Amino acid sequence: MEAERMKKQIAFLMEIDKVKNIFRQTYLADGKRKENDAEHSWHLAISAFLLKEYAKEEVDVLKVIIMVLIHDLVEIDAGDTYAYDEKGAETKRAREVAAAERIFGMLPKDQGEYFRELWDEFEEYESADAKYAHLLDNFQPLLLNNESNGISWVEHNVKKSQIYKRNEKVEETSEQVWKWMSDIIDRHIELGHVRDE
Amino acid sequence: MEAERMKKQIAFLMEIDKVKNIFRQTYLADGKRKENDAEHSWHLAISAFLLKEYAKEEVDVLKVIIMVLIHDLVEIDAGDTYAYDEKGAETKRAREVAAAERIFGMLPKDQGEYFRELWDEFEEYESADAKYAHLLDNFQPLLLNNESNGISWVEHNVKKSQIYKRNEKVEETSEQVWKWMSDIIDRHIELGHVRDE
Repeated sequence: MEAERMKKQIAFLMEIDKVKNIFRQTYLADGKRKENDAEHSWHLAISAFLLKEYAKEEVDVLKVIIMVLIHDLVEIDAGDTYAYDEKGAETKRAREVAAAERIFGMLPKDQGEYFRELWDEFEEYESADAKYAHLLDNFQPLLLNNESNGISWVEHNVKKSQIYKRNEKVEETSEQVWKWMSDIIDRHIELGHVRDE
Repeated sequence: MEAERMKKQIAFLMEIDKVKNIFRQTYLADGKRKENDAEHSWHLAISAFLLKEYAKEEVDVLKVIIMVLIHDLVEIDAGDTYAYDEKGAETKRAREVAAAERIFGMLPKDQGEYFRELWDEFEEYESADAKYAHLLDNFQPLLLNNESNGISWVEHNVKKSQIYKRNEKVEETSEQVWKWMSDIIDRHIELGHVRDE
C-alpha cells in the first residue's frame, strides 16, 4: 500500500521533469536564451518568500509557494501560451483543464486533489493568495524583460495597453510592486521597446 | 527606506538568475542534456512537499522548501562541484562560504541573515530539516540517473562505495527512501552503470 503510494509520487516527480523543456517567451536576464517553466517557477517561489511584505492582504506563503511551483505543470500537455497570444488564449482553458486532470491525477488522491485545488484557485484569480501568486507571475518576467533590454517585447511587438490589461489587478494587490512595474513599463516605452498605444 | 529595501531584494532576484546557467553533472530524465541548478532546486522543492511523510523525524516543510530553493546559490561564484570530485571538494568549502557572504549579503539584513542561517544549517547536515533536505538533494539526481540510463554514473566511472558514502545518512532519515534508492543502485550495478567495488 505504502509502496504503491510512493510509486505514484515518484512517477509524478519524473513526469514533471518535462517542464524543464517547456520554454517561455521571456529571456533570461543575460538575454542569451529563453527561460523554461521550471526555472521560472523556481524564481517565483523565492520571490514569494522575499516580497510577501508588499502584499496588501495577508498571504499564506507556504501555500503560495506550492501554488507557483506547480502553476505551469499543465503546460506539459497544453504547451506555453504566450501572454499576448489572443488566438492561443481561446483554446487555452480547455487544453489546460484536461492536462490538470491527467497530471495531478497521477498523484495519490489527497495530494493530487490538493494540487488541483491550488491550481484552480490560481486560475480563478480571486483569493488574496492567488492574486499574490499572479503578481509574482507577472512581475518576474517584467524584471527579466527589463534586464534583457526588452527583447521579448520587441520580438512580439507588444503594446502598452496589453501589458496594462494583463497587470490590471497588480495595483490592488500591491501598490509598491505596481509602482516598480509601471516605472519599468514607462522606461521601455521611452526606449521604444513597448508600443505606446 | 522602503524603496531602498525593495531595490536590494530585486537586485538579489536578478543576481540569482545566474544559477539557470550553472549546469550540474546529472542529466534530465530524457537524457538529452544536463540539468541546471534552478531546475534542480525547483524539483527538490516540490519533492520536499510530496515526500515529507517519509521523514522519520518531524520536519518544517516551509523551511525545508526555502532551504532547497537557495541551497545552490553559492555556486554562482563557487561553481558546481561534482559529488564525486575529490580534488574540487578540498577547496569547495572556502569558495562557498565567500560566495554566501557576497550573495546573501545583497539582501536586506533580516532576509540575508535568514538565508545564511538556512544555508549554514543545510551545510552542517545535523538537524532533522537539513537531513531531509539532503535526502532530497541525493534522491532527486538518483531518480534522474535511473531514468536517463545511468549515463552520468558511466561518464564519471562512479563506484558503489562512493554512492554509499554520499548517502550514508539517508537511511536514518527515511528507511522507505533508502530502500527505494538502494534498489536503484543495485539495478545499475547489475546493468554495469555503477562499479561494484
